[in-house]
Amino acid sequence: MLDSEEGAFTRKPVENLLSAKSVAIVGASPKGRWPAGIYRNLKAARYPGKIFLINPNYKELWDEKCYPNLAALPEAPEHLLMLIPTKAVLGTLDEATRLGVKAATVYSAGFGEGDDSEGNRRAQAMKELCDRTGLIVCGPNCMGSFSLPEGLWSFPTPVPLLKKGPVGLVFQSGGSLGNWIKGASERGIGFTYAVSSGNEVSADLVDYLAFLVEQPETRLIALMVEGVRRPQAFMTVAAEALKKNKPILVVKLGRSEMGRRQAISHTGALAGSDEVFDAVCKRLGLVRVPTLEDLTEMTLAFLPRRYPHGSRAAIVVNSGGMKGLLCDHCAELQTNLAELSPETKAAVRPLIPPELAVENPLECGVAGFGDEQGFINIVKLHAEDPGVDLLAIHGELPRFPEKREATLFKSLSAATEKPILAFARATYSLTEESRVFQDEAGIPFLQGIKPTLRALAALGSYGERLRSGIATLPPAGGD
Amino acid sequence: MLDSEEGAFTRKPVENLLSAKSVAIVGASPKGRWPAGIYRNLKAARYPGKIFLINPNYKELWDEKCYPNLAALPEAPEHLLMLIPTKAVLGTLDEATRLGVKAATVYSAGFGEGDDSEGNRRAQAMKELCDRTGLIVCGPNCMGSFSLPEGLWSFPTPVPLLKKGPVGLVFQSGGSLGNWIKGASERGIGFTYAVSSGNEVSADLVDYLAFLVEQPETRLIALMVEGVRRPQAFMTVAAEALKKNKPILVVKLGRSEMGRRQAISHTGALAGSDEVFDAVCKRLGLVRVPTLEDLTEMTLAFLPRRYPHGSRAAIVVNSGGMKGLLCDHCAELQTNLAELSPETKAAVRPLIPPELAVENPLECGVAGFGDEQGFINIVKLHAEDPGVDLLAIHGELPRFPEKREATLFKSLSAATEKPILAFARATYSLTEESRVFQDEAGIPFLQGIKPTLRALAALGSYGERLRSGIATLPPAGGD
Repeated sequence: MLDSEEGAFTRKPVENLLSAKSVAIVGASPKGRWPAGIYRNLKAARYPGKIFLINPNYKELWDEKCYPNLAALPEAPEHLLMLIPTKAVLGTLDEATRLGVKAATVYSAGFGEGDDSEGNRRAQAMKELCDRTGLIVCGPNCMGSFSLPEGLWSFPTPVPLLKKGPVGLVFQSGGSLGNWIKGASERGIGFTYAVSSGNEVSADLVDYLAFLVEQPETRLIALMVEGVRRPQAFMTVAAEALKKNKPILVVKLGRSEMGRRQAISHTGALAGSDEVFDAVCKRLGLVRVPTLEDLTEMTLAFLPRRYPHGSRAAIVVNSGGMKGLLCDHCAELQTNLAELSPETKAAVRPLIPPELAVENPLECGVAGFGDEQGFINIVKLHAEDPGVDLLAIHGELPRFPEKREATLFKSLSAATEKPILAFARATYSLTEESRVFQDEAGIPFLQGIKPTLRALAALGSYGERLRSGIATLPPAGGD
Repeated sequence: MLDSEEGAFTRKPVENLLSAKSVAIVGASPKGRWPAGIYRNLKAARYPGKIFLINPNYKELWDEKCYPNLAALPEAPEHLLMLIPTKAVLGTLDEATRLGVKAATVYSAGFGEGDDSEGNRRAQAMKELCDRTGLIVCGPNCMGSFSLPEGLWSFPTPVPLLKKGPVGLVFQSGGSLGNWIKGASERGIGFTYAVSSGNEVSADLVDYLAFLVEQPETRLIALMVEGVRRPQAFMTVAAEALKKNKPILVVKLGRSEMGRRQAISHTGALAGSDEVFDAVCKRLGLVRVPTLEDLTEMTLAFLPRRYPHGSRAAIVVNSGGMKGLLCDHCAELQTNLAELSPETKAAVRPLIPPELAVENPLECGVAGFGDEQGFINIVKLHAEDPGVDLLAIHGELPRFPEKREATLFKSLSAATEKPILAFARATYSLTEESRVFQDEAGIPFLQGIKPTLRALAALGSYGERLRSGIATLPPAGGD
């Protein structure tokens, strides 16, 4: 962690950004892809607030009136979406604060990333402007945000399928947010707020995170972090999240020296020591996620908000080849496999073909392959075993017009409070039918064996941390 | 490797299975999912041969005549698809050989997997029947195969999108084949033959592999292997594949003790020592692939049949966040990053914003983000650098009705003979439009950073092995 400010802090009112009732697109233009994209996204989200367009070169745009400048507007918009050249940004913000604007998203780069002294000077000036006037800025060098409750999508690229749900996002990289959220939405994940925070000259990761931790509809938080600018405050908020049982999943860059240099160059964030960050995650129950692909699977795994009492996993599949893959991957990832009780083993024995071993992972062969009810019965026996904390079972979502009921999975989910992950050994596309089936089944359907095993381990450690609370650190110094 | 038979061998004529001009579904029934599925797949593939249905309980099925038994058929079918109980299989095969049947696919288990002595006896009897009569059996305990040239799909589950292409498959696990091929097809991969080989009592992995190595349309081979029953023959065929420049990608189970036990239990295959298998792969240029997800990305990467002279990779992206992820993953996977020449660096410098570093991986920021032509120009400079053997560049396929030309990617592909992989940092679904774009672009579009980096490394080692040929082993013993 990087600095030594105190844990207590006042968070900046990012509501001014995320819940604004009127916006202005400053630099609206049919020629720029971003202003047009933002306008399209606001319409796609049915943003109910006022949208003002500003560009001195047009009187009308997209069938709406276009204003030459801020002063010409009939009222001050709450939130400016700034798509003008870097050099014009500060002057416009200064004018805006005098008109009563409370918030702005600044998309332009050139404010403090890399070694650019002119950019550092600009960033400093923006910070002073914000401190002096109370203006809240998202970015600069960001790609805006999605507010699902308010229908306020200030993001410039198209994101179909985006729906409301319990996940809040803060990514320091806007491109990564846009890419990731598309794939995650296809998998059925829904969101409250998704923010690309960029260079964080004004509002930073901790402000957004604190907002999400307070915000009642947000139940799960995913972060992509290049560097934490206020480590003490970050830890305070993370502890609060654990207290409220809102898991935080983190893809953190900067494991490598090259990655740490890149973080500074990208958004001016110091990544800090990776080992220290790891230790903070362990202590506060944050789940460190190795890749964006894993982030999708882990988000799905955490969505049902079922957390196990331990990490002893039972795995049930219906294919020998799948069990073979599983065995290797369990060994490689050192999965904590449950030891089944003699009672469970005895109950399972007559339900599977005699040539198959009753062991964990279990392959149940034809007893599960052609007989979904039989498979679920076997899984239920595993769920009842007191030595099992959580389960992963083979399951694939339907993708094509085909009659398939989610009833059996639903009955399984209802029969236990333990977390259950259904998973497939290979990746595939989902359809609307798949997403509906997943919702009805009430359990998440993951893809890929290794991400599933990592999700089991993450659920296990989060569950343990949730119960044990935060460990007290030994006093510093002395021995 | 497991036994000591000589390298030279006569391969079994698996054409009898894969290219049969007539088939019979023995055990055709509207009640069984598999026989109905196979019939549906044969129709979906427009199999031009004769399809006979056999079941004494029906006179007609699916609007076709149904025969009570083999003897009642007007002619002997070339290939029997056996969907009858395990105990009835041997007797029916025996009768079939007397009628002139050349090949059969046996789906039933109970022939040599696990510790079942009765099953081992059955497997031995089937082997003797095949040896005595020349009958070729696929399986038992398999899920059949797909012959794309012949339209002969004997697989029981639906696989939409399957199209002709240069990839041949042999999976010892039928379930894994069915799952994997669906996802791979969605990504635009096309196939010649895809075989699930099961317990391999008659035709085995090496027979299918040798057939694919000979078969002219097959240019790339993917295997999922539990165990190699004839290691010497396997190595002979693998060496032949290298000579013909047909890369073999292998997902091999049995890295762990648990995985090795499972292989025996699933298809009776001895997985052998994992270290020995690794050494064989290195020597013969087989590409060992860690997961089924990676197999999809690597197949895409190898499809253009461009192999580099070395493994020095240049990577060009247009996003700082992506570069951050890349840097960490490059460090973790020890990617062999090319050292750019001073000339390349000087040529790139004016093309990207001044605050961005000219280094490998390169982030070109706005020079690439909003300007695809600019991005391709920068990539071309990298491709011309003699110190660069192959390239990975940021690229995502269009997924929605949107106007996007593949021309620029095509021009890039035409401008160099070096392998180029386009890649996205997150996974997402493809549409028909995506697949058409990828075909037109002439370069593969991968998903996920780590699989892309592993694909770069695999292309590098395969290219090196292709040029150097097979290393001669030192004489055994002595010193």
